[in-house]
Amino acid sequence: MELVIGDKRYSSWSLRGALALELAGVPYRERLIRLNRPDTRLRILEYSPSGKVPLLVTEEGLVWDSLAIAEYLAERFPEAHLWPRGEYARAVARSICAEMHSGFAALRTHLPMDLKRDQALERVPDEAKTDIQRICMLWAECRSSFGQDGPFLFGHASLADAFYAPVASRLRSYRIDLPPVAAAYVDTIYHWPAFQRWLQAAQEESEA
Amino acid sequence: MELVIGDKRYSSWSLRGALALELAGVPYRERLIRLNRPDTRLRILEYSPSGKVPLLVTEEGLVWDSLAIAEYLAERFPEAHLWPRGEYARAVARSICAEMHSGFAALRTHLPMDLKRDQALERVPDEAKTDIQRICMLWAECRSSFGQDGPFLFGHASLADAFYAPVASRLRSYRIDLPPVAAAYVDTIYHWPAFQRWLQAAQEESEA
Repeated sequence: MELVIGDKRYSSWSLRGALALELAGVPYRERLIRLNRPDTRLRILEYSPSGKVPLLVTEEGLVWDSLAIAEYLAERFPEAHLWPRGEYARAVARSICAEMHSGFAALRTHLPMDLKRDQALERVPDEAKTDIQRICMLWAECRSSFGQDGPFLFGHASLADAFYAPVASRLRSYRIDLPPVAAAYVDTIYHWPAFQRWLQAAQEESEA
Repeated sequence: MELVIGDKRYSSWSLRGALALELAGVPYRERLIRLNRPDTRLRILEYSPSGKVPLLVTEEGLVWDSLAIAEYLAERFPEAHLWPRGEYARAVARSICAEMHSGFAALRTHLPMDLKRDQALERVPDEAKTDIQRICMLWAECRSSFGQDGPFLFGHASLADAFYAPVASRLRSYRIDLPPVAAAYVDTIYHWPAFQRWLQAAQEESEA
């Protein structure tokens, strides 16, 4: 399989797709298309009819969008338990991933992922603060209801962590003050080897 | 189970959740919260911590967001085959649902769902036309690759149709000129009994 991605520094959706593949434990090739260049859109369209990354190229055809890639891998590699094991835990994991997938627009607009950044914003807009509060609440609820067996949202690392890892990186990069449970979870993400590999590659990426 | 929804006339995401429940064939109660009223936000927050509809209240707890509700029902009622049967067909169905879930912002902004409307826009903005072209292409590809056994995107009615039914309604309500395959698919949605029931209720809804 091949995963078509954007810059590791900036492409939070690509990171989600890559973490899903890491969770599945399946070998894959990476094809990186540099973003914000004159030929970016054309290069993406060579592979991806939706014009977006990430895109997974499988033997059978294309699978696009990070959430569809996640579900495809979860179904194809059931022994890897990409979703949590309990039926209701899975439902909550899917709920928070879907909420991330279509929401938190203020966070995404005002605190875009930048894995080389380590600097606070002059002012965090109120609507981004609202997003951050909601995220901290979700994390606290998952950790207390489902996180007994490990430090991730549902104990063991799962697709929920793949979806919230880029959020953890934003909260750290922009030096957001966090309640203890959320701060501990950001640490968990930064100690996750799959995330560390991506982070290191992002920090070694040449400038656009 | 109980499904918390917004106005049937306007709430396209609620329609998706309801169609998913219809596909599952599971009895459920409906709790309708009128949108665009002074107490709307507070009333939604009574049930839904994300502040959004739809929300599914199950015996075990809340499941929120139409896509998570869809996956939850697909997993819980496997005999109903909410997703198409082939592994790759499922992957494509999930890809187009995810693309709808996070995309087509211009279509959603400029042609909001209004099931009482039957009137063209003065001018369809170019970016909405781009969305419509992409959607017509997706529909044509699904119909030709996977639609042999029936008139829906993947033959039999599936979650992909639940996700695109509100789009079909927009294309009809705003009288968009469509290529033949897309026009036929809009007809299919308007002949789908589950959609017809919602449409009729929407048209009988009192004004906000």
